[in-house]
Amino acid sequence: MDEVQTFMNIGVIGTGAIGQDHIRRITRKLRGGKIVAVTDVDQDRAHQVAREEQLEANVYADGHVLIQAPEVEAVVVTSWGETHEEYVLASIAAGKPVFCEKPLATTADGCRRIVEAEMACGRKLVQVGYMRRYDQGYRALKRVLESGAIGEPLVVYCAHRNPAAPNFKGDMAITDSFVHEIDVLRWLLDDDYVSAQVVSPRVTRFAPEGLQDPLIILLETKKGIHISTEVFVNAQYGYDIQCQVVGEKGVANLPEPSAVVQRSEAKRSTDILTDWKQRFVDAYDAELQDWIDSTERGEMNGPSAWDGYVQAITADACIEARRTGGIVPVNIPDRPAFYQR
Amino acid sequence: MDEVQTFMNIGVIGTGAIGQDHIRRITRKLRGGKIVAVTDVDQDRAHQVAREEQLEANVYADGHVLIQAPEVEAVVVTSWGETHEEYVLASIAAGKPVFCEKPLATTADGCRRIVEAEMACGRKLVQVGYMRRYDQGYRALKRVLESGAIGEPLVVYCAHRNPAAPNFKGDMAITDSFVHEIDVLRWLLDDDYVSAQVVSPRVTRFAPEGLQDPLIILLETKKGIHISTEVFVNAQYGYDIQCQVVGEKGVANLPEPSAVVQRSEAKRSTDILTDWKQRFVDAYDAELQDWIDSTERGEMNGPSAWDGYVQAITADACIEARRTGGIVPVNIPDRPAFYQR
Amino acid sequence: MDEVQTFMNIGVIGTGAIGQDHIRRITRKLRGGKIVAVTDVDQDRAHQVAREEQLEANVYADGHVLIQAPEVEAVVVTSWGETHEEYVLASIAAGKPVFCEKPLATTADGCRRIVEAEMACGRKLVQVGYMRRYDQGYRALKRVLESGAIGEPLVVYCAHRNPAAPNFKGDMAITDSFVHEIDVLRWLLDDDYVSAQVVSPRVTRFAPEGLQDPLIILLETKKGIHISTEVFVNAQYGYDIQCQVVGEKGVANLPEPSAVVQRSEAKRSTDILTDWKQRFVDAYDAELQDWIDSTERGEMNGPSAWDGYVQAITADACIEARRTGGIVPVNIPDRPAFYQR
Amino acid sequence: MDEVQTFMNIGVIGTGAIGQDHIRRITRKLRGGKIVAVTDVDQDRAHQVAREEQLEANVYADGHVLIQAPEVEAVVVTSWGETHEEYVLASIAAGKPVFCEKPLATTADGCRRIVEAEMACGRKLVQVGYMRRYDQGYRALKRVLESGAIGEPLVVYCAHRNPAAPNFKGDMAITDSFVHEIDVLRWLLDDDYVSAQVVSPRVTRFAPEGLQDPLIILLETKKGIHISTEVFVNAQYGYDIQCQVVGEKGVANLPEPSAVVQRSEAKRSTDILTDWKQRFVDAYDAELQDWIDSTERGEMNGPSAWDGYVQAITADACIEARRTGGIVPVNIPDRPAFYQR
Repeated sequence: MDEVQTFMNIGVIGTGAIGQDHIRRITRKLRGGKIVAVTDVDQDRAHQVAREEQLEANVYADGHVLIQAPEVEAVVVTSWGETHEEYVLASIAAGKPVFCEKPLATTADGCRRIVEAEMACGRKLVQVGYMRRYDQGYRALKRVLESGAIGEPLVVYCAHRNPAAPNFKGDMAITDSFVHEIDVLRWLLDDDYVSAQVVSPRVTRFAPEGLQDPLIILLETKKGIHISTEVFVNAQYGYDIQCQVVGEKGVANLPEPSAVVQRSEAKRSTDILTDWKQRFVDAYDAELQDWIDSTERGEMNGPSAWDGYVQAITADACIEARRTGGIVPVNIPDRPAFYQR
Repeated sequence: MDEVQTFMNIGVIGTGAIGQDHIRRITRKLRGGKIVAVTDVDQDRAHQVAREEQLEANVYADGHVLIQAPEVEAVVVTSWGETHEEYVLASIAAGKPVFCEKPLATTADGCRRIVEAEMACGRKLVQVGYMRRYDQGYRALKRVLESGAIGEPLVVYCAHRNPAAPNFKGDMAITDSFVHEIDVLRWLLDDDYVSAQVVSPRVTRFAPEGLQDPLIILLETKKGIHISTEVFVNAQYGYDIQCQVVGEKGVANLPEPSAVVQRSEAKRSTDILTDWKQRFVDAYDAELQDWIDSTERGEMNGPSAWDGYVQAITADACIEARRTGGIVPVNIPDRPAFYQR
Repeated sequence: MDEVQTFMNIGVIGTGAIGQDHIRRITRKLRGGKIVAVTDVDQDRAHQVAREEQLEANVYADGHVLIQAPEVEAVVVTSWGETHEEYVLASIAAGKPVFCEKPLATTADGCRRIVEAEMACGRKLVQVGYMRRYDQGYRALKRVLESGAIGEPLVVYCAHRNPAAPNFKGDMAITDSFVHEIDVLRWLLDDDYVSAQVVSPRVTRFAPEGLQDPLIILLETKKGIHISTEVFVNAQYGYDIQCQVVGEKGVANLPEPSAVVQRSEAKRSTDILTDWKQRFVDAYDAELQDWIDSTERGEMNGPSAWDGYVQAITADACIEARRTGGIVPVNIPDRPAFYQR
Repeated sequence: MDEVQTFMNIGVIGTGAIGQDHIRRITRKLRGGKIVAVTDVDQDRAHQVAREEQLEANVYADGHVLIQAPEVEAVVVTSWGETHEEYVLASIAAGKPVFCEKPLATTADGCRRIVEAEMACGRKLVQVGYMRRYDQGYRALKRVLESGAIGEPLVVYCAHRNPAAPNFKGDMAITDSFVHEIDVLRWLLDDDYVSAQVVSPRVTRFAPEGLQDPLIILLETKKGIHISTEVFVNAQYGYDIQCQVVGEKGVANLPEPSAVVQRSEAKRSTDILTDWKQRFVDAYDAELQDWIDSTERGEMNGPSAWDGYVQAITADACIEARRTGGIVPVNIPDRPAFYQR
């Protein structure tokens, strides 16, 4: 049972929860990738993960050394958010493809620097970890929109509900949760945002002290589509992601996850997931498999550095809109030719 | 087959479409009411309806004469909207119970005059024709809210979609359509409005020239509930009334009308109604039956003159909000003790 | 408030639970009927019901006297099943329309005698209380079948589930429960039965001692349609009536009762009824209203004596099939011209 | 991009449609398998497939040579059904794991010979290609049953509907379609069959000349569960696999495939698949991946030779039952210790 086959040799920066998830994906479920290097701010953890996952991988002192290592052909950045920008820039400088978990950078300026570096380098090297574009449900919804069955989209309703977020504070509902809608809706509608407004309804008694929960975020797009998203992170009942598109001739809904319909105790019911990881587990797999496959082919299909930049600008506008209570413009620069689809 | 039983003797002012509907209801489906007098601005039509429906009814020259007629015990006003105020005031002056189709009056001031007249008279005599409170679906939804199963309401999403409204213009989406949501949501949530905002998304190509369609109307209530209603009167696909309440612990939806689930031609489907009359036909019956029954008992259970007044104030605020694009306060006076529930 | 209007004067034989229900229907909800006479094997109960329901009704010594009473124009038989035959025969003899709760008679022979008496009398006077034909759901299903949307019916699946039937024994699942399917499916499919088979699956631990529960009853029709009905009277979870018709081009299901869809506690759910009375309450109203209306017009629209007779023959075949385990013919005589639809 | 990793070297006998599907799965989607040898009765086709799929594989003259080839570590049999038995027996004789598409053999005797050979060999080497056990929907349904939420199963309803099967004749609805239910229901219920009956309802006008379509197949299990399966292979409207389990306390349904809910043209609808390959595509992947993974670990988890044998006995009983119209015993021998779960 020994044969030669080619693999993409991957170095992983950051071996916390999501880093370990991606390592397990690559080593156990996906094809064509091999973890050859790891590093973590906690060196012990990096060694432990390498051991437990039986990786034939070098453990490096830090991300910059890992990026320079000759055996590393591509980089996965799953470190603390504050460090993303520098590792992505270093990967670009080294000419190595990099998959960076969200956020691409913690500021729009940081994202812009990455965009500029990538354009200067002349080659698309960066994919950002927005996995919803790879979800079969969103893809089915996009096919319906593209079929013309409901006509041009006019209004979109989304809900992003978590059972509980005891540690959320400030604008985390925007920066940690809503960013997924920011990304996937641009892709779904093939459109961009022009303004944002945030409404603060009555707060649930289950919110941690000081957290505005739920939030209603209203976006308007270039085409004039009105998008209303409820971000409700202490919704108790489950992890529930909803998306309804109202078009000129009809309405289409993001599919509910497939589930047993049960009749018992005077109810007809289906289970709702409570763990967000289950909801998009297949999308995470597809996302990373596509990164490996397209990188091997010298392409970059997923959410780009430009998408990460636009996401940061939009999130900033939402934060400003929440602060002021007004309607705030979302000033997205013209898309450079480099990033045209 | 002849026996004596008591009936409420009803005079109907206005024998157009809705007037005829109510006449047929009372004579063919409901119990305890009898049409003894009719009138219409078109005398011929009044005579024709009396004849076709085989009414043993006097045909009067106008509404005022009808209201004064001694055999008329209670009045139904289904004439042109501009005339509602005067006939309702005349009915109050005559001390006769009156059921008035919406609107109670065409202006908030007109509604206020009716409220003042009714209070001066010292007895509740006016019911306004908002029938949704009598719909079994809204009632079931209200029971769920009152059960506490989803906790306190925080956000409400409504949609009011008609297949086509070729004759709509200006603010008719507010004054003719949205008024139903204004009424039923106050009742559903046992709350009042404090502000209104109107968003104008991309217009459907199916809208008549100059009509903003759809409209998104945002209301905030005293309790802080955020209500988003889409009024989309050229939605093509059907007559579709949606209402979703998001509470602290769960979500509840207005029931869909019961329908055959069919599998055919590669689809699993249920029919959506296209005619608004079908959707609430049972509610119209229940509304008028309750009016007859409660009037016979000397009560008045349905939407009151006060409710009609509040509805007018709210609609005015929505129109102002649409004009200005801003968030407009809804200034509802304190509810007089006379109208306490 | 006093006016003359015509009513059908009704005498009710049997003032137990279902008798009282029908009395309340006629006096409080329906139009055109008036209870002018009652009787019961328990005279005290008859008097008490007359008093409590404030009937202006004579209380007679027995059903035969009531039927003869000159003020009684039409008869409702809601007495003990064993007595139905004699009261229906007496009503026919008196030339008075009679609404008889199921069963028409306790034996097929008894039903045949009624059929013969009615034919001899030359006028349809008998309606049997199978209310499902009046259910809006079954009517919608019938409309779908008649539309041709699913082609010719080939297979039908039914389920008749009660939460609990602690007092059921012997063949009551057939004679008390399944009879409703026997009647409504003939009407739905416009067909008749040719054979019956009964399968006895594993018995639920919740069945009372000695009761075979559930039962699976297989019927074949003249057109060759295969009908499988599960009668499961201790199904615990609710009162649930299912009917699925498989046609050449598609499948159609009896509508589920309209209900709030709720998301809470990690479930998306709708309530299932637990009380059979709620499930068909509107059908009972429609059935009796139609009896009153059609009787007044000199017609008889509902389930006829013939339908009651066929039902009894079919139930007998099912009982025989259960006893023998084999496939038993259902020998229905040719439909007399008198009963042609 | 060159690294050493271990693979299971697989030889494929039969490069027709399903053989090519499995080759593509192994080379493009799954992990750990490598196609090193192919053969087909049509040598040109074998060469062509090897070329088109860019296999580094030897093309052998026939299946027996391929099985003997030293580089072949495991065998996939996707040849014509008549040849399955000999290739499986040869694989066992060679001590090589073999994945055999259904049927294991075309007769129960043939299956028995394989079972005996495998037991004589002393090691489980055979997996049969019943993929439904790997379907996420059936797995979710099995979890619900095992949770006890609906109590002990009493009745099961299945439907196996194809849009069209123009080439079906004789008993193919049993031997080609129903065999999937035979296998998956034993696994789902952890039970075995004791008798079979086949009902032949009215034939659809869309059936090819001479085909009885639909068929209703009734099975009874050791535990007394009644299973009714409709096999309807010219059902027109779609490929639709249904399974409903009625338990002592509730009912559970096989999940419908996840799909967009759309409102358009007066219908609320979801698409139904029309291609059977789409319905179970993920199950096919999971099945073959599990075969590779468990084989590498020296295990055999999937449907065994014993399962294939029982399936053949049951199908034979169904064919006999269809021929005779009676209730036919399913005589399954005691499960040998070798095959205990």
